[in-house]
Amino acid sequence: MRTVRFSDPAGQPRSGTWTDDGIVTPATTYDPAAVTLLPPAQPTKIVCQAGGYADHRLESGREERPDRPELFLKTPNCVVAPGGTIELPPNRSPIEYEAEIGVVIDEQCRSVDESAAMSYVAGFTCVNDISNRPDQREERNWVRGKAFDASCPIGPVVASPDDVPADATLELRVNGTTEQQSSRDNLLFSIPELIAEISALITLEPGDVVATGTPFGPGELTAGDTVAVEVEGVGVLENTVKRADHDR
Amino acid sequence: MRTVRFSDPAGQPRSGTWTDDGIVTPATTYDPAAVTLLPPAQPTKIVCQAGGYADHRLESGREERPDRPELFLKTPNCVVAPGGTIELPPNRSPIEYEAEIGVVIDEQCRSVDESAAMSYVAGFTCVNDISNRPDQREERNWVRGKAFDASCPIGPVVASPDDVPADATLELRVNGTTEQQSSRDNLLFSIPELIAEISALITLEPGDVVATGTPFGPGELTAGDTVAVEVEGVGVLENTVKRADHDR
Repeated sequence: MRTVRFSDPAGQPRSGTWTDDGIVTPATTYDPAAVTLLPPAQPTKIVCQAGGYADHRLESGREERPDRPELFLKTPNCVVAPGGTIELPPNRSPIEYEAEIGVVIDEQCRSVDESAAMSYVAGFTCVNDISNRPDQREERNWVRGKAFDASCPIGPVVASPDDVPADATLELRVNGTTEQQSSRDNLLFSIPELIAEISALITLEPGDVVATGTPFGPGELTAGDTVAVEVEGVGVLENTVKRADHDR
Repeated sequence: MRTVRFSDPAGQPRSGTWTDDGIVTPATTYDPAAVTLLPPAQPTKIVCQAGGYADHRLESGREERPDRPELFLKTPNCVVAPGGTIELPPNRSPIEYEAEIGVVIDEQCRSVDESAAMSYVAGFTCVNDISNRPDQREERNWVRGKAFDASCPIGPVVASPDDVPADATLELRVNGTTEQQSSRDNLLFSIPELIAEISALITLEPGDVVATGTPFGPGELTAGDTVAVEVEGVGVLENTVKRADHDR
């Protein structure tokens, strides 16, 4: 099942199920073209893994596998809806894309074991971990580098775990050209391992997103680009890119 | 004016004004002893400055002043109410206190100039930036180290800017013994400078907290301690410390 949030023609936020017939709600079925998609989850925080794939660790000069997952944070101001605009922060270059598999939390959890972790998961979504490299390189903690406005497109849906195979493919395209390609079974730490590790110290709330890291091949985004992240079983998260108007 | 949030005897969350006569609301005046204080703000994120005071920078082996503020993040799961319990994360030592002046945002802001920054500020509160040193030392990004559950007591009130002098004192006491002492005018970056710097890339939302950093003297907390942060014009944020029951 693929759950979607959207703004109906009256401007009311609604949830429904994405099907071949349209977006199904108890009252009616909506034409996806007639509504505005909203982010499929409303995270209180996004806990991200850095270096979740060996090939990206090696291309960025790190050892192949760390002792434990390396984490960083994004915040609610980072979230961008499917179809929404990624506004590049002013006077920074390069700003890069990073395709990721996102895990959406269903129920509040703390100190959960790996064996129980999936029972707290609503499902999976696509994440684009937009990264501001000049600041990221200078900062000890990646705040300007990773938690700036519009640095986290998510969507288009939350797909149930049984819709997303253990070896689900992950792909990123810029203007139709494939730039990143991997699969879930290349993750160095499994999703239950990540949830157990994070929740040992940090309560995960309903709607929170765990972004599992990006594989080989992040690259620069330019104003005018269309960038798409596709996770098998979830669908395609597509966003357009523009340069910010304000200038600081 | 000092604004406070509390749970009334019926369990309803309410806002009021802290006065010598009690907590004043339009309907009635409450005896502070008869209500449970809530965190005075509900941040979507807490943007923290690391190394905001020269004396603490030097004691932790950093240069006296950085080129720009060094930032890190805390998340909503970190927040602890005034009077609430700080649960020490299991199997980590030392867990340390850090007294800070907190700035509470009143109105959504992005790309504000220093000259306009204070018009987006609701007021000031006390912050205790509880720090998990073993993880902080190992992590590139301080997630386990700084954003664990109960790592950010705030309160007891939000005091209007005109209640908090430019040289307001900041003090921390453990079991009544003063351990940290400084004042707002020792901050390396002023509060308007911090808001301008953060909001250049990051939207600040109503209720968000900017934690301005700690002066010389952080030290260890032990189960059974009572820790108090006092900011002149705000009041005293007092919390008790216990060891977590669960054990991971």
